[in-house]
Amino acid sequence: MKKDKIKFGVIGVGRIGKVHVENLVNQIPETEVVAVSDVFPSELEKIKQKYNIAASFSDYKALLNNPEIDAIAVCTPTDTHYQIILDAAKAGKHIFCEKPIDLAIEKINTINAAVKKSGVKLMVAFNRRFDPNFAKVHEIVKAGKIGEPHVLKITSRDPAPPPEQYVRSSGGIFLDMTIHDFDMARFLVGSEVTEVYAKGNVLVDKMFKKVGDLDTAITVLTFKNGAIGTIDNSRQAIYGYDQRVEVFGSEGMVTVANNRPDNHIYFNREGTHTALPLYFFMERYMDSYLNEMKAFVHSLQNEKPLPVDGKDGLQAVVIGLAAMKSVKENRPVQLNEILSN
Amino acid sequence: MKKDKIKFGVIGVGRIGKVHVENLVNQIPETEVVAVSDVFPSELEKIKQKYNIAASFSDYKALLNNPEIDAIAVCTPTDTHYQIILDAAKAGKHIFCEKPIDLAIEKINTINAAVKKSGVKLMVAFNRRFDPNFAKVHEIVKAGKIGEPHVLKITSRDPAPPPEQYVRSSGGIFLDMTIHDFDMARFLVGSEVTEVYAKGNVLVDKMFKKVGDLDTAITVLTFKNGAIGTIDNSRQAIYGYDQRVEVFGSEGMVTVANNRPDNHIYFNREGTHTALPLYFFMERYMDSYLNEMKAFVHSLQNEKPLPVDGKDGLQAVVIGLAAMKSVKENRPVQLNEILSN
Amino acid sequence: MKKDKIKFGVIGVGRIGKVHVENLVNQIPETEVVAVSDVFPSELEKIKQKYNIAASFSDYKALLNNPEIDAIAVCTPTDTHYQIILDAAKAGKHIFCEKPIDLAIEKINTINAAVKKSGVKLMVAFNRRFDPNFAKVHEIVKAGKIGEPHVLKITSRDPAPPPEQYVRSSGGIFLDMTIHDFDMARFLVGSEVTEVYAKGNVLVDKMFKKVGDLDTAITVLTFKNGAIGTIDNSRQAIYGYDQRVEVFGSEGMVTVANNRPDNHIYFNREGTHTALPLYFFMERYMDSYLNEMKAFVHSLQNEKPLPVDGKDGLQAVVIGLAAMKSVKENRPVQLNEILSN
Amino acid sequence: MKKDKIKFGVIGVGRIGKVHVENLVNQIPETEVVAVSDVFPSELEKIKQKYNIAASFSDYKALLNNPEIDAIAVCTPTDTHYQIILDAAKAGKHIFCEKPIDLAIEKINTINAAVKKSGVKLMVAFNRRFDPNFAKVHEIVKAGKIGEPHVLKITSRDPAPPPEQYVRSSGGIFLDMTIHDFDMARFLVGSEVTEVYAKGNVLVDKMFKKVGDLDTAITVLTFKNGAIGTIDNSRQAIYGYDQRVEVFGSEGMVTVANNRPDNHIYFNREGTHTALPLYFFMERYMDSYLNEMKAFVHSLQNEKPLPVDGKDGLQAVVIGLAAMKSVKENRPVQLNEILSN
Repeated sequence: MKKDKIKFGVIGVGRIGKVHVENLVNQIPETEVVAVSDVFPSELEKIKQKYNIAASFSDYKALLNNPEIDAIAVCTPTDTHYQIILDAAKAGKHIFCEKPIDLAIEKINTINAAVKKSGVKLMVAFNRRFDPNFAKVHEIVKAGKIGEPHVLKITSRDPAPPPEQYVRSSGGIFLDMTIHDFDMARFLVGSEVTEVYAKGNVLVDKMFKKVGDLDTAITVLTFKNGAIGTIDNSRQAIYGYDQRVEVFGSEGMVTVANNRPDNHIYFNREGTHTALPLYFFMERYMDSYLNEMKAFVHSLQNEKPLPVDGKDGLQAVVIGLAAMKSVKENRPVQLNEILSN
Repeated sequence: MKKDKIKFGVIGVGRIGKVHVENLVNQIPETEVVAVSDVFPSELEKIKQKYNIAASFSDYKALLNNPEIDAIAVCTPTDTHYQIILDAAKAGKHIFCEKPIDLAIEKINTINAAVKKSGVKLMVAFNRRFDPNFAKVHEIVKAGKIGEPHVLKITSRDPAPPPEQYVRSSGGIFLDMTIHDFDMARFLVGSEVTEVYAKGNVLVDKMFKKVGDLDTAITVLTFKNGAIGTIDNSRQAIYGYDQRVEVFGSEGMVTVANNRPDNHIYFNREGTHTALPLYFFMERYMDSYLNEMKAFVHSLQNEKPLPVDGKDGLQAVVIGLAAMKSVKENRPVQLNEILSN
Repeated sequence: MKKDKIKFGVIGVGRIGKVHVENLVNQIPETEVVAVSDVFPSELEKIKQKYNIAASFSDYKALLNNPEIDAIAVCTPTDTHYQIILDAAKAGKHIFCEKPIDLAIEKINTINAAVKKSGVKLMVAFNRRFDPNFAKVHEIVKAGKIGEPHVLKITSRDPAPPPEQYVRSSGGIFLDMTIHDFDMARFLVGSEVTEVYAKGNVLVDKMFKKVGDLDTAITVLTFKNGAIGTIDNSRQAIYGYDQRVEVFGSEGMVTVANNRPDNHIYFNREGTHTALPLYFFMERYMDSYLNEMKAFVHSLQNEKPLPVDGKDGLQAVVIGLAAMKSVKENRPVQLNEILSN
Repeated sequence: MKKDKIKFGVIGVGRIGKVHVENLVNQIPETEVVAVSDVFPSELEKIKQKYNIAASFSDYKALLNNPEIDAIAVCTPTDTHYQIILDAAKAGKHIFCEKPIDLAIEKINTINAAVKKSGVKLMVAFNRRFDPNFAKVHEIVKAGKIGEPHVLKITSRDPAPPPEQYVRSSGGIFLDMTIHDFDMARFLVGSEVTEVYAKGNVLVDKMFKKVGDLDTAITVLTFKNGAIGTIDNSRQAIYGYDQRVEVFGSEGMVTVANNRPDNHIYFNREGTHTALPLYFFMERYMDSYLNEMKAFVHSLQNEKPLPVDGKDGLQAVVIGLAAMKSVKENRPVQLNEILSN
């Protein structure tokens, strides 16, 4: 697909859809957004105007009918991904899809089969892989600078819990929040997870208990290459978004500090004070959204393999389902148990 | 000037001019670039195309004739500022001008008088004031959190020396490089400089000696409020752009660390390793270019005083001339000596 | 026991015994060492000479016969603690005992009962509680500054594995190494552990496999107050002794960085470089050895409760045994299962 | 002087004298303190008892008469150093003397001549050279890791001003406080100072004005090798003792952070908080006092050159006198001007 300009349709222009439109229009010269669609007409019209986009549709199917479009970005709620992707694959459009692809393994398998059959490319938007910090950790691990990976540690804490309505349809902490860390775990260690043990509690807000979810969790991962890892999550770190990883190996260790809005250090009688971490994902991961879209476009233009594909989308969900089962049964769960269901 | 859109003409579209065009077009919704001018036609055409700009001119005077234009950004070499500003003032355009306004006090005085008379606004682009780190230091000092300022320290080192041709017409280290630090000094301490002592040497590259310049310098500043300060400069820090400030006062101290591309920390047998500072000003100060232009636009739209004006532009040059005289005569120089010339 | 000088006998003058003698003689003015014992006569004589100690014995029982002695420090191998403590309790000597007291719950129960009956005091030397870093974390948590503790994280890695002979008689990674972290967990969270899940592997040195031990492990702890925690251990961090803790709660988080021999920061073309963590426990925890002995002496002199007692000694071993069982059976183990055996 | 034990007499057992006695008796096995002297009998007796020292004298001359004594430590006020050193040299004792040797160049010259003639060794106690941080910076510079030194920066701030009485007899900020930094400057850059410019003010406490002293100062140093440097001093940093150095060169830069009592990092809603620097020199430089005495003893035992000698003692005073003259006359002063007086 050696084209001067890749023409995009963006389906869903909510918070994250807007980010992708902005990046495609203003930051990535090799792309053009020729159509947007959304079920909310008012936002749709605003975006169309602001970015001078040729066409807008309330129904994504109309967008897929545009033969000019090379690729789509799917930025709608998770439960709509399945049908959109199947339709897009049939229409021969390359697909950039927000995570998770779907919460059901069977549907993901159907998606992956359809994508394969149609010959289009599907990238799952695990944007954190494209964060400069985590990308650097990955680079150092991959270059062998820490030797063989032995222990992985991920800390992932949100600044504040989402509203109850969101939580109810989120799929639970492991499929909504930890799923990013599960992908990060596979990415950083470079080996598949084989077993999961998870332990959780409701310590932040009783609402989570009411809806059958957890707000605090620790997950232990066992990897095929023998490494072991631990992820700790909380729905509320009052000091801001806490996103750290550490990979320890036979020849060294690599870790990251959080990003902060500035690097000032203030000394007074009481102590030494610095800024808090950036507040949440829209601040922390803005770079990563641009980088992931650039990577998608680069793969399309150069006919190179995608950096994150449907298999990655599947694995993260499988680990999430295993973690849920582990908490429920209070025992380690083999990934085989999930996959063979 | 309560307008929906402020219409800009950008004069000079070299490296820094391109940054301003990009920010005005894509990042500041309240502005529009309706014309660009440059003496190099090829770059001019590229920019016009890329940003879909209505008009382009080889002569800035043609641009100034456009009655639609509210404000101009002057991004041409320093020796052209004088005439452009005088012409723009006459044409009734608000002016955003790259630093320094000029290297001659008399001309700056003429500029400031012309601007005053015509009623337009003139902002001098001391972009570092808008860097999130230095803005935070300023905020902390201004809020009284360090009490009365006693000692200022600025370290400012470039990653590599500019080419000889550039150095020859630069005005020397104090007017080309330290001038930023002189403005920062006034900005952070919140008081005028009254005396300057400077000491320098050629330690990096003998080329500087050949052209009668220095590559390494220390400047001591005395402020009206009693504070004292020191600036150290080098034309070559092989580890990257080193930009740090520190303000020490009766109730505390505030300092900043350099910005780095990422926050990884790597441990191996030899030690603990982190990234170098960002390489140079285009990486380090990208945010500040956007923020300063936003501040200019904000002042225009809300008829508020400019954050950096012609007086600031003058003072930095005066301090620079005093530093030059101090090195030449190896003695402290009063600012009065320069002004009364 | 309001005495001017507390008279000590030190039993065992190997590496750690020497540290205690030095601290008692030279650093704690309220104490005096009047006798030492050891089965190796040559070391014993050296120590006696160096510190000008009145008496030395090859058999600790002779030392216990000295009616002048108020307190003993037990610095012999773990398998000798049981008999020495019982004998010391009978002789009415206060006891400072290196950790672990013993590896068998039954014996620890017998020790605790004997100590209680005799009215002497028994302090178990979990020295890390007295490390200035961890003591500060404890102080911050205890003062409520992080609110309710939710998540505990401990990283504890040795710089190099011990020799095979040592490993064989060590009781395994959980009773030899992680036992310190188990005590730290209880100390920092301020709540008892109720359940343990542990996962381990041999990744550093096959010798551990040969002797039926692990060299890499992750442990998940559940606390009575609802908090959850994770400990990760490795027998070999090639960059030095890695000792970090983090407590995360409803109102904040507190963590520590490793101690380093100096605070230099070196910048060259390749990056920014700082010193490695201190090499091992004799460097890192030297302060804590002095502080723990001072605390013991302070408790004796002021008839205050000990900061670490026989119950603490018991709990750490119980958690260790639960971790061993958990690894063996690959399932979470309740502490009740261990205690009710 | 290959002796098993070097026998010391300590003259003056105030604050710093006590530190040396403790180190000689308890920390340096190759030495023995056989006599102490002080004009205050009560302190003298206490020290004698505590450390079990054979002899004590109210008059140091009696101490010097003891033929057993190999070396003395001079820990008395500066104005007594001259006579004590001359007497000690005559008595053939090696001399370890607190800084400054004296405040008058002529007397220092007399001392150095006397010491040379008698063949004894004289070490001036610039203890900061032996601080692990500054020693590391020196090591890195000396190893050529920063290439040729170009710029030196020293920040040296006390936590609180001394009492007026002390200030009156201190010799002024440059001879009392900055003198340490002058020695550090020569030590780190590895080249002699040739010119000094100093600027000061009274910003902390009007008392300094009353007694004709300064409490805030910046000094610019020019070195023979072309490097330039700056020192900033304050008598009051309310956040604690601030002791930092930085050496910048053609191939890199090395700097140090302050020592803190612990490495905790606390995050709450307001920001990220760490401990303040150690309070003052007795906390910060305790290691350096031990290291400097070990270095003295090592030089004596191995007949190696002293790491800091009478010439170093002289130079620091010369630079201090130049700084005083520079402030008075508000002009740079050549060191030749001072020496040729």
